[in-house]
Amino acid sequence: MSLDTILDHVDGDLENSIARLMDLMRIQSISTDSKYSDECISAAEWLVDDLVSIGFNAEIRETPGHPMVMAKGGEGGIHTLFYGHYDVQPIDPIELWENHPFEPKLEETKNGPVIRGRGASDDKGQLMTFIEACRAFKDVTGSLPNKISIFFEGEEESGSPSLVPYMKKHVDELKADIALICDTGMVEKDTPSIVTMLRGMVSQEITIKGPNKDLHSGMYGGPSINPIRVLTKALGAMHDENGRVTLEGFYNGVTELPEQIIQQWNDLSFDENSFLSEVGLKIPAGENDRTVLEQIWSRPTAEINGIWGGYTGEGFKTVLPSEAHAKVSFRLVGKQNPEKIQSAFTKHIQSYLPKDCTLEYKLHGSSMASNMAIDNPSFEIARSALSSEWKNPGVYVGCGGSIPIAGHFQSIVGLETMLIGFAQDDDSIHSPNEKYDIRSFHKGIRSWVRILHALA
Amino acid sequence: MSLDTILDHVDGDLENSIARLMDLMRIQSISTDSKYSDECISAAEWLVDDLVSIGFNAEIRETPGHPMVMAKGGEGGIHTLFYGHYDVQPIDPIELWENHPFEPKLEETKNGPVIRGRGASDDKGQLMTFIEACRAFKDVTGSLPNKISIFFEGEEESGSPSLVPYMKKHVDELKADIALICDTGMVEKDTPSIVTMLRGMVSQEITIKGPNKDLHSGMYGGPSINPIRVLTKALGAMHDENGRVTLEGFYNGVTELPEQIIQQWNDLSFDENSFLSEVGLKIPAGENDRTVLEQIWSRPTAEINGIWGGYTGEGFKTVLPSEAHAKVSFRLVGKQNPEKIQSAFTKHIQSYLPKDCTLEYKLHGSSMASNMAIDNPSFEIARSALSSEWKNPGVYVGCGGSIPIAGHFQSIVGLETMLIGFAQDDDSIHSPNEKYDIRSFHKGIRSWVRILHALA
Repeated sequence: MSLDTILDHVDGDLENSIARLMDLMRIQSISTDSKYSDECISAAEWLVDDLVSIGFNAEIRETPGHPMVMAKGGEGGIHTLFYGHYDVQPIDPIELWENHPFEPKLEETKNGPVIRGRGASDDKGQLMTFIEACRAFKDVTGSLPNKISIFFEGEEESGSPSLVPYMKKHVDELKADIALICDTGMVEKDTPSIVTMLRGMVSQEITIKGPNKDLHSGMYGGPSINPIRVLTKALGAMHDENGRVTLEGFYNGVTELPEQIIQQWNDLSFDENSFLSEVGLKIPAGENDRTVLEQIWSRPTAEINGIWGGYTGEGFKTVLPSEAHAKVSFRLVGKQNPEKIQSAFTKHIQSYLPKDCTLEYKLHGSSMASNMAIDNPSFEIARSALSSEWKNPGVYVGCGGSIPIAGHFQSIVGLETMLIGFAQDDDSIHSPNEKYDIRSFHKGIRSWVRILHALA
Repeated sequence: MSLDTILDHVDGDLENSIARLMDLMRIQSISTDSKYSDECISAAEWLVDDLVSIGFNAEIRETPGHPMVMAKGGEGGIHTLFYGHYDVQPIDPIELWENHPFEPKLEETKNGPVIRGRGASDDKGQLMTFIEACRAFKDVTGSLPNKISIFFEGEEESGSPSLVPYMKKHVDELKADIALICDTGMVEKDTPSIVTMLRGMVSQEITIKGPNKDLHSGMYGGPSINPIRVLTKALGAMHDENGRVTLEGFYNGVTELPEQIIQQWNDLSFDENSFLSEVGLKIPAGENDRTVLEQIWSRPTAEINGIWGGYTGEGFKTVLPSEAHAKVSFRLVGKQNPEKIQSAFTKHIQSYLPKDCTLEYKLHGSSMASNMAIDNPSFEIARSALSSEWKNPGVYVGCGGSIPIAGHFQSIVGLETMLIGFAQDDDSIHSPNEKYDIRSFHKGIRSWVRILHALA
């Protein structure tokens, strides 16, 4: 059966595909609020039923929290494991929604038709692109194109407490040749994107203690050290005049981009000026010998996410405070070692610490960067398939944030992951009036048909 | 009549003096709480009656707030204007008081007898030392020793809103040869002290604005400037490694101490180590070529009194905030010009400001340092009188904080002020269980007798 027949079938069945997505979106599977627990179970059951209907062997798997959905089907080709999540974000503030978030609506916009409602993009619409692609193969050929495992969780929007224990317990079941995730976006409207680099992170809180109580700056100002002074001096020295982080050994393990990726990024029509001017800025603040895309995707950062100390209310108090605090995080890339970064940071602060002050340190979280092995042939197969579907060729991109599941596939199951998603920047995920472009949904299904066909 | 006769009378009348102070302390003259307004009037009336009873021409003077007390009496000698305040601090937290704050109690302590209650030291006990001294002259000699004006306010603990307008309107009435204030302490238990240097202050709040909204550090961290980074870099550069303030021209107008004062300060038994260790510190944090006393009394400072920005709650948020804030004050000495300090500070911050960030600046307060002209002969007269009363000779000291009335006497009336007080560090002014040593009260009265006798 030719690829075109299957793609034609996708086109002809689009209305039904949309109707099925709307059915799933009507289930109020908010994971963070226990009053929606039954709805989470309903969403998982809906998916099991749907997967069974297209030839998967699918079932609910209990966890201490919301259930997982595991499904297996098809034979041969490259064994793919597809991950998605059926839970959604809360809907507050409900009054800002134009339609009820769980009564999805088709709507014409100046950028084309969209489906609006909670989960339209994140992640129900995206995961259904994959299921609809599988359905098209089943409808047209009577079977799935290759060996496919499906793994859905229902706690992605509430910190995934059951995920790692479940994965560790079911490593064998999760084994495949490659993992696929549809939970990311497209770098540009017509440029399909495979995320191959995810930054890691170390986050921590520090407290510098000086005098044993708050002092009056008239009586003590001068001889008594002010911990805010120590804190600002230490944190203010974390970046040099070129935007580089000054911690000792900070750049150890930071790898340079392969030529192929530099080329792809340079070919993007990404506009540094408009990226910054949209948030009211003009001057890239990262390392000044790097492009903005590199600064977000492939370079590490040091960020002060919070700082506080002394009197912060109205008016003025001449207090010389006993303590000063900051929350500081580092985004990591390449093979930067979180433990070494933590200890370089502590050492940096300590080097500014007078002997009569103390430093308290609390680690909040720590993860290495993920870097996909793009020499795995599946990557070029998928990129080529994407390039056939969209106007522009597919690119390998980075992601400044973290998507922990990709790291877990690597560390727990030993799987490379291709993060391929069709969301747009204006989808308002996590916000009122979330939407998914029908174009993303339709061409997303077609993209997976092409990818599965090529991987088969 | 000899000085000794009057001093003997003070000794013999001490019980009555204490009883009168207790009468005044029973009046609940909390100025900051309007429900005590009538009590403030009662305190003013009590003082007028008492002053009239010892030969003053005294009266209440209305203001938009609590009334002033003005009194004039005596003739000849050096015309002295005595200032004090009859209002007191609030009494919260009331449950921490051992006796009711407005039911004063005599109490034996390991350091001798004290009178305990709100206002015992600040400032009812202190101002009564002067009135009792006047009474002793009147009782023994039938008249006051010299020309004396008395000026009491009732808003000192609530920001003195009526003070400057009143003084400007009544400059002529306030004219004298020298002003006396009894609202300060003794540098050591047995060392009478005249404050001749008061630090001025400039206080301000700054806001640095970066992106036009809070950003996610995963999506924007790197190319988007973090205003906390700018703030810490700028504030962290305000002190060099020797504890000196780095603002341009900051030390212009800072004067060196006269040899006489250096000598007096060196002779004090002040212990730098125990001063710092009492508040849990060890290393003087001011200019490292200055003694701790100089750092508090005669050297200027830069202090960050408050700082805040980003996420400061529990846990962690990878926010890249839109704004960062700080409250910063400078203690000024000598002839440092507050306007020039402000503008040097703004310039300093601006020199660290990327072109796409903005600085907002808000001045909270500004006053020059006060330096008394100790070559005015009254100073040596008073110091010698104090030296006769106490175990150790009198010293000229500084005060790290500000006492605005002294500056007003200088700038509005053209008067030098001698700040002579007998409070002890452990008097707990502004706190529960305020007390005044009977020794301070008794020898304070005797000190004023000696000073007035010498000035007459």
